[in-house]
Amino acid sequence: MPGMWDLTLPDVLGQHARSRPGQLAAVCGDARLRWPDLDDRARRLAGALATAGVGRGDRVVWAAQGCHRVLEGLLACGVLGAVFCPVNWRQTSEELAFVLEDAAPRVVFWQEAEIGDTVRAARAGAAQGAMWVRHDDDGAQGYESFLAAGERFEDVRAEPGDGVLMIYTSAFSGRPNGAVLSHRAVLAQDLVIAHVNGVEGTDVFLNSGPLFHLGTLMRTFSTFHLGGTNVFVARVEPHELCRTIERERCTGAFLMPPTIAQLVEANRDGRYSLKSLRTGAGAPEWEAMVTVDPLARPAGGTGQTEVMGMVTFQAFGGTGAHGRPSPMAQVRIHDDGDVECAPGEVGEIVVRGPVVGNGYHNRPELNAAKQRNGWWHTGDLGRVEADGSVTFIGPKARMIKSAAENIYPAEVEACLASHPAVREAAVIGVPDEVWAQSVKAIVAVRDGMQVTGDELVQHCRARIASYKKPRTVEFVDALPRQGYAVDYDALDARFGGGGYPGGWNRSV
Amino acid sequence: MPGMWDLTLPDVLGQHARSRPGQLAAVCGDARLRWPDLDDRARRLAGALATAGVGRGDRVVWAAQGCHRVLEGLLACGVLGAVFCPVNWRQTSEELAFVLEDAAPRVVFWQEAEIGDTVRAARAGAAQGAMWVRHDDDGAQGYESFLAAGERFEDVRAEPGDGVLMIYTSAFSGRPNGAVLSHRAVLAQDLVIAHVNGVEGTDVFLNSGPLFHLGTLMRTFSTFHLGGTNVFVARVEPHELCRTIERERCTGAFLMPPTIAQLVEANRDGRYSLKSLRTGAGAPEWEAMVTVDPLARPAGGTGQTEVMGMVTFQAFGGTGAHGRPSPMAQVRIHDDGDVECAPGEVGEIVVRGPVVGNGYHNRPELNAAKQRNGWWHTGDLGRVEADGSVTFIGPKARMIKSAAENIYPAEVEACLASHPAVREAAVIGVPDEVWAQSVKAIVAVRDGMQVTGDELVQHCRARIASYKKPRTVEFVDALPRQGYAVDYDALDARFGGGGYPGGWNRSV
Repeated sequence: MPGMWDLTLPDVLGQHARSRPGQLAAVCGDARLRWPDLDDRARRLAGALATAGVGRGDRVVWAAQGCHRVLEGLLACGVLGAVFCPVNWRQTSEELAFVLEDAAPRVVFWQEAEIGDTVRAARAGAAQGAMWVRHDDDGAQGYESFLAAGERFEDVRAEPGDGVLMIYTSAFSGRPNGAVLSHRAVLAQDLVIAHVNGVEGTDVFLNSGPLFHLGTLMRTFSTFHLGGTNVFVARVEPHELCRTIERERCTGAFLMPPTIAQLVEANRDGRYSLKSLRTGAGAPEWEAMVTVDPLARPAGGTGQTEVMGMVTFQAFGGTGAHGRPSPMAQVRIHDDGDVECAPGEVGEIVVRGPVVGNGYHNRPELNAAKQRNGWWHTGDLGRVEADGSVTFIGPKARMIKSAAENIYPAEVEACLASHPAVREAAVIGVPDEVWAQSVKAIVAVRDGMQVTGDELVQHCRARIASYKKPRTVEFVDALPRQGYAVDYDALDARFGGGGYPGGWNRSV
Repeated sequence: MPGMWDLTLPDVLGQHARSRPGQLAAVCGDARLRWPDLDDRARRLAGALATAGVGRGDRVVWAAQGCHRVLEGLLACGVLGAVFCPVNWRQTSEELAFVLEDAAPRVVFWQEAEIGDTVRAARAGAAQGAMWVRHDDDGAQGYESFLAAGERFEDVRAEPGDGVLMIYTSAFSGRPNGAVLSHRAVLAQDLVIAHVNGVEGTDVFLNSGPLFHLGTLMRTFSTFHLGGTNVFVARVEPHELCRTIERERCTGAFLMPPTIAQLVEANRDGRYSLKSLRTGAGAPEWEAMVTVDPLARPAGGTGQTEVMGMVTFQAFGGTGAHGRPSPMAQVRIHDDGDVECAPGEVGEIVVRGPVVGNGYHNRPELNAAKQRNGWWHTGDLGRVEADGSVTFIGPKARMIKSAAENIYPAEVEACLASHPAVREAAVIGVPDEVWAQSVKAIVAVRDGMQVTGDELVQHCRARIASYKKPRTVEFVDALPRQGYAVDYDALDARFGGGGYPGGWNRSV
């Protein structure tokens, strides 16, 4: 009997509407939606989208900031078998125009506040034909009117393997690619995240991270699936976050260290009670404000958007830096011929299982390469340790090949960083007439210290295999970064790097 | 790419062999199998079974007591896409013969010790043609020799929806039926059980319950899936259980109250250390022996073998007696026309989602009825409370229909039990010329107390709708029971019950 074994995101929503009728599903400013409210709004939005021509496999873009409507839009798409694509609202109009052209959505939800000029410029430069609905417009053309006109769409048209979420990942092949994730992948990952992080139906999760990134969304979905409350904010504003945590009694939040520092600063006088928040250990001022959970487990691991986020977890232990695999994935290390590597050997991390996504939207050749032999090829290099746990080494796309030797920048960088005068160091591969590539180090020196390139080369020669040592060293005041990550593209551009043999693989 | 999203039990096994090479997967007497050992034995057993003619969809029967070989046999069947069927070793030879005839296995693993006569008698009375392998025979015809001759079978032939486990359930339609559970159902339930019960990869679970029952197997599989250690014993022997808990430092066990009482008695002098065992609260002597887990959640709920065990959990809260639905299931209440009942209305509990099994082996008509309209019809009556939680009422097969009114025995029984003189009470339906059925109560009175049938009828009339009150009352010393459950079949036989309108539905 088809369908009897299926479970989709709107199925979960419909169940919560029945099983938790009085509980809050989503909070966003003044909007407070219980499960039946969210169910009704998502199904009416599905009706409105269907009227606008959205059908199975079609895309709907969210070009706006954080909001409970992200969850509504995603669930409405889930009802129809369509794909919801929240895009990075910090992008330039050119970047956004590329995404709009590539995703070719039927409907775009957008926002005037703060990013209106960028979105309008992108719209002018992208393919026409989509219906545009402004979500921060309370009038007859706005989101609420659009939703209110929709007729409740009862039947779920999606199957578990259908895409429901699309997230554009970094431009490893010269352009961003939209990674498509299925209901099956989302729902499988939800239970793993719930297990690792102790997510419960009584949780109140503050979506203080970007909703175009799985870092936050993994927890959003897990909270949704377990029946907890998701709280949304447009963007990070420390006082607003503090007020929201206090008002909604949030039990969790997506908080990177700089945000935590902002919250500590905003609440230095203790004007907000953040005690409902259960977190891991941190700085003393932070610990004094929140409730430190002694059972919190290490949160690290490795993964990527294309496999629904994390597929190894430090919480599962082991000597490897990135823990053991998810119970919903097989994770192996393969050589270039897709033969499994022995423990200790470096190769490409490949993944199978329900958490694996459906590949990239509209990239058939790339998908064929990444999905070859029935495994998702992450483009990340890793190693299985003697105890079976996994260490992520670095992106395959930046592996340096000098003659026949594979050189992993992370290893050389760690060696350079162990020199007392080095504040930070990055390694790139530059073309070499004899060896194909050679290693170039870019180094920032600690204030008040001095070191020469030769000294650093000798430092490495004494510690790692000679062929791995840098041939040349360049000094900079600071490494260029994109967010937290070193901007290797900028280093390549400035110092002549390139020609990496990793091929079609992501760079970060 | 077919297969990339699949996960099966042997896939999990193969991953653990890589990710936890030094950790114990299974312990049984002197056998101590690390994950690579279990992986190797299961895949060699798969090779031996394939040589014996076992292919996709074929059945393999385990007619023996508890043993690590149950896990091996199940995993070997999982490799081949075959179905492993552990049968109740306490059955009579006639019952066992029926199961053997019905399952029509290619291979039967059996045991001489304790049950050899029963098995031999059943074998004589059942269809011939299976290969019989004695697992407690160390010779050339025994299990170990059979396994050792197998060639390691590397490729998994099963798909996630294939059956892997078959369990015979009670004889609601006049004969037992083999409920088939898929890899998908087992693996989905595993994570739910892990979430509800806090199962971890560091757990050591003592399989002290029957391995032909999901009560134990739900936890066995969850422990397996998370990478913990399963410890096996042939059967419950209190000193042996105590020794095993102490020796293996078991962290959990399947313990019903009478077993706990036996362990308390066996360990009254404190000769065994059972402190590794984490359990919920219990009697003071028991709590003094073990480690009471203050975070233990209520373990109750409702479900059935056919949906991989529990589908609602008290751990998810609510005013209903049986909690809220599993995150891997949709659970609704339907009327006889498969229209959803409103909260407060009693109807049949129906289930959808990955935990739903594949129906019964070789029962096409029954399956069509139970799977109609894309929902699994449990044959159990239930109600959704105002807060969305679920209360299980009783088996539909024993619903009493008096004229047009539905009468649920549990409600009448609870009313009778509230009378101070009643120790226990059961209600059956007896044929009635006018009303189709009428209510008969069977009552055991408390020692030293007296009550008449008329008084009990008046007691009920004052408390529940008049049509629900018993028309007749019979007194017994004690209700007949099968295990813990009241034996309603025996009551029907003795007091003339029958003619229930619930149709093809399980009775217990």
